[in-house]
Amino acid sequence: MIRKRIVEGFERGLVVPQGLLAHGRGEALDYILGEETTPQAYEATRAAAALLLLSKRPVISVNGNTAALAPQDIIRLSKLLNAKIEVNLFYRSQERVKRIKEYLSSMGASQVLGDDDVAELPGLSSPRRFASREGIYSADTVLVPLEDGDRAEKLVALGKKIIAIDLNPLSRTAQTATVTIVDNVVRAIPNLCVAVENLGDKPPIELEKIYGDFDNQANLKAMIELILRRLTRLAGLEVLK
Amino acid sequence: MIRKRIVEGFERGLVVPQGLLAHGRGEALDYILGEETTPQAYEATRAAAALLLLSKRPVISVNGNTAALAPQDIIRLSKLLNAKIEVNLFYRSQERVKRIKEYLSSMGASQVLGDDDVAELPGLSSPRRFASREGIYSADTVLVPLEDGDRAEKLVALGKKIIAIDLNPLSRTAQTATVTIVDNVVRAIPNLCVAVENLGDKPPIELEKIYGDFDNQANLKAMIELILRRLTRLAGLEVLK
Repeated sequence: MIRKRIVEGFERGLVVPQGLLAHGRGEALDYILGEETTPQAYEATRAAAALLLLSKRPVISVNGNTAALAPQDIIRLSKLLNAKIEVNLFYRSQERVKRIKEYLSSMGASQVLGDDDVAELPGLSSPRRFASREGIYSADTVLVPLEDGDRAEKLVALGKKIIAIDLNPLSRTAQTATVTIVDNVVRAIPNLCVAVENLGDKPPIELEKIYGDFDNQANLKAMIELILRRLTRLAGLEVLK
Repeated sequence: MIRKRIVEGFERGLVVPQGLLAHGRGEALDYILGEETTPQAYEATRAAAALLLLSKRPVISVNGNTAALAPQDIIRLSKLLNAKIEVNLFYRSQERVKRIKEYLSSMGASQVLGDDDVAELPGLSSPRRFASREGIYSADTVLVPLEDGDRAEKLVALGKKIIAIDLNPLSRTAQTATVTIVDNVVRAIPNLCVAVENLGDKPPIELEKIYGDFDNQANLKAMIELILRRLTRLAGLEVLK
């Protein structure tokens, strides 16, 4: 079903061929994880929800894959947080930005940034450097589901807090983000909505404690250990018998 | 460079979107393997070469991804072994079979089967059941690079020997093949050519010994252990520091 969604997104012109390759890499990692949300991912999701609720200008960065896989959950999350959605693409073209914006609007998004009043983020050479002045450029916290490469590092260097959703706990994005949720976006974003609803009434001091108690490096390390255990078990069941 | 080749194969109409997803899954596994041929894979390659040299009617089964990634090596191997090449697709269409045949012919293949005098393999419901009477249908050994699913099982049940090239040692194909080479096709097929050249002069009794001494289950188990060690090391370098 997920695979069908990404292929449909491709046929609709939201996803590029490289996005299908990236999705395949994620599938392999999700298979190893057992295709389920781990306790560690739930913990990271809770910390991410607290951080988003504490933020003054949270922005959700959306690429073609995220738009294809979880459009409704992204929109729900943006409404819960009053967060802006911004289309930000590595394989950037005006037409694709427009297509993704229109797709999200057709699903109920009230406003989607990405191609109006764009500024350049310093220190980045990829097309990801184009950020909306009202969006990522001036955000204090950016949620970046599904993203390779060097942008997370630069955004952190610019003083922003980054929440990554990434199935590879060893990726550069996972390693440099403020909070990394090692999970599939189709599970992580709905979980994030629920966590935001559950924490919505808490006073800032409690949210700060939840966020402050979270140790991203320890969480990533636990995820890697879990992947190793899981692989050992997979191997045991099917080969080492 | 490999990624460019598969995307070009897609643009040329050889590869379907699902093939890009499958390639991405392979990339993730190859990354864990360190993107190099392991001693275990070399050993499996040598056993596969011996088996191919012992076979009376070896056939190389080619899908869109294989045609896009290693056309010249496939053709070289078919000439070294005097083996037929047959296009066999899961997402089968007459046009795509034709396009892949034409592509391989343009690269120098002398004859490519796949859409003429086709018979149905019993027990298979996928479009992979269509096999050329002169090719896979009457083969004694079939080389199947990059293949998911249930065909390897059926071909083994029909008394054929199967050589799989698969980066996932836990896949059904890897587990049921007679010889499984856990490696990237872009390395495995040239290696197979070299092994065939090296063993080409050996008498059958020596080839039988090489093939007979090879234990596929033990090789797969060793590959899984190697993947686990490699992941542990990756984790140690980047996270557990």
